Amino acid sequence: MLDGDLYAFQDLLSEDEAAVVRRVRDFLEAEVVPIANDHWQRSDFPHHLIKRYAELEIAGREGSSLLNGWLALEMARADASMATFYGVHAGLAMGSITMCGSPEQQQRWLPAMASFDRVGAFALTEPTGGSDVAAGLRTTARREGDEWVLDGAKRWIGNATFADLVVVWARDVEDNQVKGFVVRGDAPGFVATKIENKIALRTVQNADITLTGVRVPEADRLQNANSFKDTAKVLRQTRSGVAWEAVGVMLAAYEIALNYAKEREQFGRPIAKFQLVQDLLVRMLGNVTGSLGMCVRLAQLQDAGKYRDEHSALAKAYCTTRMREVAGWARELLAGNGIVLDYDIGRFVADAEALYSYEGTREINTLIVGRAVTGQSAFV
Amino acid sequence: MLDGDLYAFQDLLSEDEAAVVRRVRDFLEAEVVPIANDHWQRSDFPHHLIKRYAELEIAGREGSSLLNGWLALEMARADASMATFYGVHAGLAMGSITMCGSPEQQQRWLPAMASFDRVGAFALTEPTGGSDVAAGLRTTARREGDEWVLDGAKRWIGNATFADLVVVWARDVEDNQVKGFVVRGDAPGFVATKIENKIALRTVQNADITLTGVRVPEADRLQNANSFKDTAKVLRQTRSGVAWEAVGVMLAAYEIALNYAKEREQFGRPIAKFQLVQDLLVRMLGNVTGSLGMCVRLAQLQDAGKYRDEHSALAKAYCTTRMREVAGWARELLAGNGIVLDYDIGRFVADAEALYSYEGTREINTLIVGRAVTGQSAFV
Amino acid sequence: MLDGDLYAFQDLLSEDEAAVVRRVRDFLEAEVVPIANDHWQRSDFPHHLIKRYAELEIAGREGSSLLNGWLALEMARADASMATFYGVHAGLAMGSITMCGSPEQQQRWLPAMASFDRVGAFALTEPTGGSDVAAGLRTTARREGDEWVLDGAKRWIGNATFADLVVVWARDVEDNQVKGFVVRGDAPGFVATKIENKIALRTVQNADITLTGVRVPEADRLQNANSFKDTAKVLRQTRSGVAWEAVGVMLAAYEIALNYAKEREQFGRPIAKFQLVQDLLVRMLGNVTGSLGMCVRLAQLQDAGKYRDEHSALAKAYCTTRMREVAGWARELLAGNGIVLDYDIGRFVADAEALYSYEGTREINTLIVGRAVTGQSAFV
Amino acid sequence: MLDGDLYAFQDLLSEDEAAVVRRVRDFLEAEVVPIANDHWQRSDFPHHLIKRYAELEIAGREGSSLLNGWLALEMARADASMATFYGVHAGLAMGSITMCGSPEQQQRWLPAMASFDRVGAFALTEPTGGSDVAAGLRTTARREGDEWVLDGAKRWIGNATFADLVVVWARDVEDNQVKGFVVRGDAPGFVATKIENKIALRTVQNADITLTGVRVPEADRLQNANSFKDTAKVLRQTRSGVAWEAVGVMLAAYEIALNYAKEREQFGRPIAKFQLVQDLLVRMLGNVTGSLGMCVRLAQLQDAGKYRDEHSALAKAYCTTRMREVAGWARELLAGNGIVLDYDIGRFVADAEALYSYEGTREINTLIVGRAVTGQSAFV
Repeated sequence: MLDGDLYAFQDLLSEDEAAVVRRVRDFLEAEVVPIANDHWQRSDFPHHLIKRYAELEIAGREGSSLLNGWLALEMARADASMATFYGVHAGLAMGSITMCGSPEQQQRWLPAMASFDRVGAFALTEPTGGSDVAAGLRTTARREGDEWVLDGAKRWIGNATFADLVVVWARDVEDNQVKGFVVRGDAPGFVATKIENKIALRTVQNADITLTGVRVPEADRLQNANSFKDTAKVLRQTRSGVAWEAVGVMLAAYEIALNYAKEREQFGRPIAKFQLVQDLLVRMLGNVTGSLGMCVRLAQLQDAGKYRDEHSALAKAYCTTRMREVAGWARELLAGNGIVLDYDIGRFVADAEALYSYEGTREINTLIVGRAVTGQSAFV
Repeated sequence: MLDGDLYAFQDLLSEDEAAVVRRVRDFLEAEVVPIANDHWQRSDFPHHLIKRYAELEIAGREGSSLLNGWLALEMARADASMATFYGVHAGLAMGSITMCGSPEQQQRWLPAMASFDRVGAFALTEPTGGSDVAAGLRTTARREGDEWVLDGAKRWIGNATFADLVVVWARDVEDNQVKGFVVRGDAPGFVATKIENKIALRTVQNADITLTGVRVPEADRLQNANSFKDTAKVLRQTRSGVAWEAVGVMLAAYEIALNYAKEREQFGRPIAKFQLVQDLLVRMLGNVTGSLGMCVRLAQLQDAGKYRDEHSALAKAYCTTRMREVAGWARELLAGNGIVLDYDIGRFVADAEALYSYEGTREINTLIVGRAVTGQSAFV
Repeated sequence: MLDGDLYAFQDLLSEDEAAVVRRVRDFLEAEVVPIANDHWQRSDFPHHLIKRYAELEIAGREGSSLLNGWLALEMARADASMATFYGVHAGLAMGSITMCGSPEQQQRWLPAMASFDRVGAFALTEPTGGSDVAAGLRTTARREGDEWVLDGAKRWIGNATFADLVVVWARDVEDNQVKGFVVRGDAPGFVATKIENKIALRTVQNADITLTGVRVPEADRLQNANSFKDTAKVLRQTRSGVAWEAVGVMLAAYEIALNYAKEREQFGRPIAKFQLVQDLLVRMLGNVTGSLGMCVRLAQLQDAGKYRDEHSALAKAYCTTRMREVAGWARELLAGNGIVLDYDIGRFVADAEALYSYEGTREINTLIVGRAVTGQSAFV
Repeated sequence: MLDGDLYAFQDLLSEDEAAVVRRVRDFLEAEVVPIANDHWQRSDFPHHLIKRYAELEIAGREGSSLLNGWLALEMARADASMATFYGVHAGLAMGSITMCGSPEQQQRWLPAMASFDRVGAFALTEPTGGSDVAAGLRTTARREGDEWVLDGAKRWIGNATFADLVVVWARDVEDNQVKGFVVRGDAPGFVATKIENKIALRTVQNADITLTGVRVPEADRLQNANSFKDTAKVLRQTRSGVAWEAVGVMLAAYEIALNYAKEREQFGRPIAKFQLVQDLLVRMLGNVTGSLGMCVRLAQLQDAGKYRDEHSALAKAYCTTRMREVAGWARELLAGNGIVLDYDIGRFVADAEALYSYEGTREINTLIVGRAVTGQSAFV
């Protein structure tokens, strides 16, 4: 059981699921944790690990939402960057194909992605449209016979510097609807430039993308993505994933802080014995436990098919807000040592900022929930 | 489904349990809500309702922790004062007898309490010992033959001005252990004086009690309460109850705020359409949902017998902290109208302060959790 | 020096000003503090004190903004209700006449108000227009020869149940501008009904007012109030006053908490010795000190004539937000005793809610500042 | 006037002081701001700038505390790393010599430091003693004739990789008192190793130092540093400096956020027009203004000689806490762009963490204030 799982939520997994979690956790602790700070520091992606994810046999398989969520948690607990790599590939890219692709397309792409022979990316956000992702989407798709021609720009696209298959969302100039296209990473006219100088999720390779007359066969257009509503279904799913990742970051931060508190001595005793330190730890633990309780119920709603946009939006906004507090308290507890990567917490504090803002800022998710519960849109 | 139960936690109840919840909710809405503000305002207890609780057939029956918790939630959602009345009677007093009484004692007292023919109270806190309830307990019990003689003072004792049976905790001068005694409300030497001028839970009749040579037969000493550890078991149980009550207060506050936001117009539109108002509502909803997720898991731990002091202490501290925020945001949303009882929120805001502090302050519950997770006691 | 004035801001007063402050403080401690809880509890105004305020010789005199602010602080530190009574009379009502009345009108009304022979009120807010006070103002004024006929309703009007002179703001049906009228409390058609069941500022007598064909001579129309901009000038001034009052409430709360912490013992020592208690006290002190620093500078801007709406709006929003935290922490520190009026903190906690919302909610003041600094209006 | 200086605190500077501020601000904007991100990113110190600071003629000159504070503010507003470099040199190192050196020592060292021909460092913190800096200090000084022999280890020592003069605090094995020694950076036995992998203040060169039999002539022992109380005097001064730096960081963060909000468009309008964005900006502005008000008063107390440890401890704790909020809100406002250094806010967010913890954590400063106001020590 994880230190921060005071309420033993992990026991809610079936035995088989628990075995998968252990396998993934072991892998992460053996392969990811030891290199995480170094790659983060150098802003370098550990390409040698990509194929190792295939061995875990988790991408693209059937599984309960609880298991999927817990795996996202474990990945983020090890390294939020690698969790993001996996989430972009298995959640956003494979998820788009699963939800919006025809059976033939699923057959064509998913197996190679499940085996990580093809890595996916997901290109929705644009330089000028972050929060206003639907109406503000400017990348265009123009049909020419059996092909489409894509023009525009995308920003923040994770994995895009090395992805084989990039799900690009563009507006059909004909009917003005947003549609999805699977673009090959080496397509002429597709240029992905790594975003440098990040202070968070530095291991993730985000790109600025330009699409200049990129030609995509109609066969590579996602056949069941007919409007932004279909895109939104994918986001709904992945927002839940970020909520779980936020819990993973909290658990990591709590463990780091707890261990430090037990070992670090000041005034002749472990600092864990000070009320002000226990106060920080218990606040963290409250946030972790409440967030886990929320995510577990969310997974049940998902599996029961009772899952709506506002459910995942609330979890995303709430859990990442709590995460930011937890990361800050943990760093506070480590004082000076909290700003050196070697003590691990620094990376989580920095990465928390990215999780807080991606897949919908707190503001946007607030307005999604607000619209659902009040019946009033307050976006503009 | 309740407005604030966005994640449909209520669906976790069995059909039978849901029926009980509906029955209780109907009763509360019909009988308690309409009179709540008036009694609160006058600091007056609605004695006519006592026997009506018996008709609900919920006190003293078997039931899952989830159901018990949800009932506490419903009661607090109607009126935190009446929830407290019920919690003192059915949780603290009947709970003490159930957990610490002999079978004969249980048989002797519980049926009449279940039918509300006898109302219970629970006298632990003392004027000088609030947080330091164990070591600081000064009320003494001196054995004289088949009797005990109790001397001391208690404070904050709910229901005590009219209770028939008061569970009094006192220190045996012989072995220095804390023991429990069921004292009759009309026992010579037992004087309960109502605490006036409260700003919260005004309907609850709290008393300052003095015990001056009160004689209690050995047969009325709880036979299985041999030290403070046994008292702590009762508190563990009731702290969970307060966590559920806190959720009830949050749900009430959220509903009041949501309804007001939909109806109140400013600048020519319902205020629900303003971003700053949706922000308040969604923050509330996050707190409600996380707290409910925590309480539901806590109930599962209780039923599984895996329940420890730190579990209920964390829930009590976390949920009441979140509740205080929620009550404040709801009142803020109602602006001026939030300070008039007629709009209901004022009562919940005030009562939240009492829930926040009773059954262990945030500080004490923090130190209970802190000790469990760090292995270090920081009480002194 | 006050306990909470760690940075000795009071030393910024001139010697003469300090003497006034001491005189007022002595009066408050002798006359107001001893009766504050009792009147609050009974929701009853201490009419016998009205004339005593005249003896202080502070209403209507010249004085620096620093002195005026500090006096508001002292009054709120004693009792926020009585500070509000005074603020409505000397700030809002006399302020309106000073800023918007002709010299003749000033001469006619101010001396009798300064001597408290005439008590003032200020009727701007309406049942349907709280935040949207300008465009939403519906009370009408129709000119008929040398008279005006006023019709409409007002809400929350402090002092109005007994005021002699009520400054009523109404919209001229002719030119659609908001104008000010001094209405006599006994004018036919003017009905003020006390708002009952308040949970805050209970000593203040707020009224719902209806105006039905109330006739006011042109000579009683404030000659220099030609549009809502003139009303806004009055509000700018009084919002600063509320910021100072908020500091007064914080100082009171801090003193109560500090004294309690030094005297209350738990675990064999004063609770002031516990880290968690010092944490609360020092957080309070930070809020007090920052807020005082803000208010002092605000007073300098006022006296220098460099004072804009956004200055007072920021101070009002910030200081009342900090005040709410401080009051909550102080009550938390007193635990159970914090909910009994006798320990004083309960009254300040409750009253803080009213101060937080009156004279512009946090939201409205935020949007006033936001418009000034961004150049963008976000009210609708 | 700075955007964030809504209350025009800068006007409190004399004309001469304002000229100095403008000179320094111009220098910072021309020389420091343009290179700040690049050096930060590479964790590299801009040695070419050192001599340029001499041209500003500010180190070691007489000046009001208000001017000194404002200069710290300006430096941190440009780059908290360079502000720290300057603070270590001119505040901690030169300050130690000024406060604890004999006239001869001041004469010997200060002019060369004022001209930056000699750069200073300050070595107090040790690997095992961060918060418990007094009793926990283990570095020893042993007198041998006219020399002292220093042994021990120091950690976090800013500037130490290239400093010429390092003020080292060590415990005299004879009388157990903490004394100060000016150690040359090239002294045999003195080894400073750069701390790598920092996530904050990356431009500052912090070192782990080992002292192995370092010999220091008695003439280089600070003649007026006889116990830790003298060291504490230096800290009191520099803690005020950190409070001012925190304000500088807040001002920078606010400006970045405000400018971004005015320029960034979403949903067809500048995001500055959204209520949720104005809410963030106004919260920031409140924190800035309250903190400035506190710092200005602190400077007055300093100049009036009424300055105590608790004054600077409160300002340090409060202003850095508020700063952390402000930096977080600003980054939130920039959403994704907030995690790329190019938008500047990322650096301030990261650096804020270091300022929050150095020169006494929030916890330690809380306990310093708490002891002063309660008369009870709660350190252990």
